[in-house]
Amino acid sequence: MLPLSAHTFNPIGRIHSCFKDKFGIPRQPGLVPTARATVEILPPYDAVEAFRGLTEFSHIWLLFVFHAVPPGRWKPTVRPPRLGGNRRLGVFATRSTFRPNPIGQSVVRLDGINQVDGRLALQISGVDLLDETPVLDIKPYLPYADALPQARGGYAAEAPEKRGRVRFSARAEDTLSAAAHRHEYDLQALVADLLRHDPRPAYRQNDAPGRTYGMRIEDLNIEWIVAGEEIVVTAVTEIETQGNTEAGADSEMKSD
Amino acid sequence: MLPLSAHTFNPIGRIHSCFKDKFGIPRQPGLVPTARATVEILPPYDAVEAFRGLTEFSHIWLLFVFHAVPPGRWKPTVRPPRLGGNRRLGVFATRSTFRPNPIGQSVVRLDGINQVDGRLALQISGVDLLDETPVLDIKPYLPYADALPQARGGYAAEAPEKRGRVRFSARAEDTLSAAAHRHEYDLQALVADLLRHDPRPAYRQNDAPGRTYGMRIEDLNIEWIVAGEEIVVTAVTEIETQGNTEAGADSEMKSD
Repeated sequence: MLPLSAHTFNPIGRIHSCFKDKFGIPRQPGLVPTARATVEILPPYDAVEAFRGLTEFSHIWLLFVFHAVPPGRWKPTVRPPRLGGNRRLGVFATRSTFRPNPIGQSVVRLDGINQVDGRLALQISGVDLLDETPVLDIKPYLPYADALPQARGGYAAEAPEKRGRVRFSARAEDTLSAAAHRHEYDLQALVADLLRHDPRPAYRQNDAPGRTYGMRIEDLNIEWIVAGEEIVVTAVTEIETQGNTEAGADSEMKSD
Repeated sequence: MLPLSAHTFNPIGRIHSCFKDKFGIPRQPGLVPTARATVEILPPYDAVEAFRGLTEFSHIWLLFVFHAVPPGRWKPTVRPPRLGGNRRLGVFATRSTFRPNPIGQSVVRLDGINQVDGRLALQISGVDLLDETPVLDIKPYLPYADALPQARGGYAAEAPEKRGRVRFSARAEDTLSAAAHRHEYDLQALVADLLRHDPRPAYRQNDAPGRTYGMRIEDLNIEWIVAGEEIVVTAVTEIETQGNTEAGADSEMKSD
């Protein structure tokens, strides 16, 4: 039997999202419905008729590349954050981004299709997608084939639990409210939704109380602490440069 | 903004299925639970530990290449068989195999993992996969993230209807029963399940009654007619050569 040949794919689109860093991105799509993004469709795939009928579907699949993962870094086993980093599982038994072929697959809500700056754009929400993610394919979500609510979900059978309450310092609230005006959506609601899912890796959940964590959303650095059952946003600052992010290697490609 | 670069992926596995032709393959996975297949895992991905924990999941996603579709043959619109070929939809609003990046995505039941001829093999069922399909990735199905039974499914909101009854001629039954012995599973039950879904494209459903159709399953050619609400299998013959199949271009790669 002959070996199988390699396959090369060209992106058909690119994600524009509020997530400029991997830290803070919801673990799976759908967990944070307020997390919105845009798929910019690239030529020659940007013909309106190539999407005719798509808005009849409430949800779509995106197949995309985990572009911020350095190539060739996969290992046969990984420690899923869901299990507190305490248990090694096979990479194919997880949704880890460190996989032999770093292809991601997410179902997101389709809110609309329009033109932005002369480019065809899909408005989506409930995303878990890093800014600048290359998109390889878009397919309609077919509930009769894709929805198996009775499937046995192994170690990730249930959605992760949410924390009860997120509070904001007065200054953090002011900065978020100014940013909401600039970005034309409620950034404070988004930050609250994201933090309710406690983006810390499970092995950090025993850190000393009072430790400050930071995540980047849009052009803001969000700082927060965990105090008992509560998460408190202590500071929100505007970021001028893009040097120190995990996705830094891609920052030359950013447009905004 | 810089253009996005191309991405190259090497298959991690290969499908061995009873479907040697595109005609007869169920339209979506899960429709025919008796349709079984094997994913042969290719080195260097065939370490048992790379799959540790996967059998905790009842279902898995396969990302694969539509390898029998000639490259570069996509068009912005297609005529889905579900709509009788009467309506043109955007390629991204369908699961058509003729897409810019011919990547398929199917959820299948995971029945077990074992060793076959010294190679790691995943036993799966409910497949819609052509024999020799190259597999790019395997992921666990996460019901909390992937199952959206309330999603709006557009023109394909419901599973396709099944026909009532499949009958077999006595000689067809004999040949299938001999083949069942050779292949170690109930081929007649599989053929009945496949035909109950009426694999004819919708535009053929007005063909003159009595017209004979053929499909290839394992090493058999199955001939059948439609008589009213009934499908009748008129003949089953063993195939010696592999010359005249739609997937003929790949037949040099077949191992069995």
